Amino acid sequence: MKHYILIVLLSLAGAVIISAQNTPEGVPATTNITNARYPRILPDSRVIFQVTAPQAKNVQIDLHKKYDLKKNEAGIWTITTDPQGPGFHYYSLIIDGVSVADPASESFYGMSRMASGIEVPAKGIDYYDVKNVPHGDIRSKFYFSKTTNSWRRFLIYTPAGYDVNTKEKYPVLYIIHGGGEDETGWALQGKANFILDNLVSAGKAKKMLIVMVDANVGSGGAMGNSMKVFRDEILTDIIPFVEQNYRVSTGPENRALAGLSMGGLQTLYTGLTNTDKFAYIGVFSSGWLPNQTDLAEESYTYLKNNIEMFKKNIKLLFLATGSQEDGAYPNCHNLMKRFDELGIKYQYYDYPGGHTWPVWRDNLFKFAPLLFK
Amino acid sequence: MKHYILIVLLSLAGAVIISAQNTPEGVPATTNITNARYPRILPDSRVIFQVTAPQAKNVQIDLHKKYDLKKNEAGIWTITTDPQGPGFHYYSLIIDGVSVADPASESFYGMSRMASGIEVPAKGIDYYDVKNVPHGDIRSKFYFSKTTNSWRRFLIYTPAGYDVNTKEKYPVLYIIHGGGEDETGWALQGKANFILDNLVSAGKAKKMLIVMVDANVGSGGAMGNSMKVFRDEILTDIIPFVEQNYRVSTGPENRALAGLSMGGLQTLYTGLTNTDKFAYIGVFSSGWLPNQTDLAEESYTYLKNNIEMFKKNIKLLFLATGSQEDGAYPNCHNLMKRFDELGIKYQYYDYPGGHTWPVWRDNLFKFAPLLFK
Repeated sequence: MKHYILIVLLSLAGAVIISAQNTPEGVPATTNITNARYPRILPDSRVIFQVTAPQAKNVQIDLHKKYDLKKNEAGIWTITTDPQGPGFHYYSLIIDGVSVADPASESFYGMSRMASGIEVPAKGIDYYDVKNVPHGDIRSKFYFSKTTNSWRRFLIYTPAGYDVNTKEKYPVLYIIHGGGEDETGWALQGKANFILDNLVSAGKAKKMLIVMVDANVGSGGAMGNSMKVFRDEILTDIIPFVEQNYRVSTGPENRALAGLSMGGLQTLYTGLTNTDKFAYIGVFSSGWLPNQTDLAEESYTYLKNNIEMFKKNIKLLFLATGSQEDGAYPNCHNLMKRFDELGIKYQYYDYPGGHTWPVWRDNLFKFAPLLFK
Repeated sequence: MKHYILIVLLSLAGAVIISAQNTPEGVPATTNITNARYPRILPDSRVIFQVTAPQAKNVQIDLHKKYDLKKNEAGIWTITTDPQGPGFHYYSLIIDGVSVADPASESFYGMSRMASGIEVPAKGIDYYDVKNVPHGDIRSKFYFSKTTNSWRRFLIYTPAGYDVNTKEKYPVLYIIHGGGEDETGWALQGKANFILDNLVSAGKAKKMLIVMVDANVGSGGAMGNSMKVFRDEILTDIIPFVEQNYRVSTGPENRALAGLSMGGLQTLYTGLTNTDKFAYIGVFSSGWLPNQTDLAEESYTYLKNNIEMFKKNIKLLFLATGSQEDGAYPNCHNLMKRFDELGIKYQYYDYPGGHTWPVWRDNLFKFAPLLFK
């Protein structure tokens, strides 16, 4: 690390350069690091990217689609994208073919690495804004997993008042990220804390804890043994640890399990067969994959053989997808068709969007008010 | 974001490639992202970096010094560095002149952007390891700052038992990152939570809260108005908020202020003139800069004019540097010379290292046991 004198001098030099330039269009994205002027968002949600790379041959931004940046004489590359949908989007900077995080952006664990993210303002949507309401904490907690024989971590949201109301006990939502993400997904990309802060303060959701787990256990992702390993991890390690270390109400009526995409598959796998543990289940942008017929049929057979118990136990089965998803949308509809055949009730809606965080934020916003009633 | 089917397939493809290759030397760094095989650390602490970049002309790693990587026919660039000192080091990947975070590494906010970090194993040093002891939480907390008129965030460490012992009150260490870092520095790079977990469990430090602030307020860094703005922020926003929202013991004998590098300057500026607020002060790798004579003389004049009150109030003034630092070492020694002239007592030690996190972890490890006695 460079000495701070150098850092201070560089900061001052930067300040001088900035003040000598014309004020550019748009506003810096809120996901930029401190003082980064680009990427900038225009009023119509187009985004201007700018990268200084005099020696590079080829600079691209990958934001759903790839944009080629153009270089000026000073070696500064720029592009203005098409209008972007509201909410959070992952993106990458590609320098001469190497896909990396943009140094001007905060980084988020997604796409199985630290990736850049851009928050596009959403007109008329304020349910995940930081408002002047009581705020809960997000805590980072390490626990020893006997299942994996290693120290692991979850994030846990405790609602405002948790520290003060020391006799109150709370129900718990266990929530799972998607493939290539980790326990930070629902906290940073998902803004689960702000969504709950706002819902609770408006009286629209019950106060609850949210345990944001790291479901990257086992091997082979959704196709390997990770489904089984994660089921063991949550049932025998995470839930007992949470119930021992936090003031929580126990029993299935005080536990919900939800997940998005790959986490939705893990929710189907663990949740549908453990309704004595979880009475509320949320499956976002998911459904058995076309090449998972073994797992799918195993699940449907279990449901058929235990249908009365299942119907008696389950209080809410909640399904949602993005209406523009090419994979999860049909997978979820196949799931519903089979649930219909089994006479299983569920709530379903779709949200105008792809396989992205704006959809999942809305899913949590719709799901949380239905819990623990 | 790509759909999870693609991610799963790519993961499987990766698994096949890995198993078909020879097992490489060394072990992946613990700071790597999940399943990243490089960078790898050899038994003698040299580090092997590997980057796939067929189209790049020039790939470097900047780890204290710059290393040029060499490309093979498959477009894979590699280098084995010199042996690295134990502990955490920032590094950058430079692709055709653009300095970015290595996609294979976790990212840390440092050098005023998301940077890569590598944890080099430290033989015989285990005070910041994750051990089988009770663990506290690190919480992310948002508060509204009247000083900056914006929502801001700190991280707060609550020790093991904080949730259970609901009548116990705790003293508070307020701790500040260095230039180009933020509130995450002491948590992620510093491992402050594990240091305290281990010290507390060994009976070597009192249970305390640690508030890890974001001191990036005002403008111009250590040379601008940030010193004054941060002083207002901590005294009128952060401390009252902490004392209202957490179970803390109040009064100067229950508050410590410490910081590293630029945070050490902020500690000198705010701490020395507010011993009625903080009875314990820690200044790590710092001392007035050669071009800060105005601030320095103002501080010494204040101390001279208030010397009896200062001596009466202060319980510990703790100074530390890395013995191989070129800037902070003489700055700190100038400070001590002036303290000597004023008859002010302090504790000082230096640690074999440069202006880096291994020094600051050791500083906290030595400082924390002296607090709140």
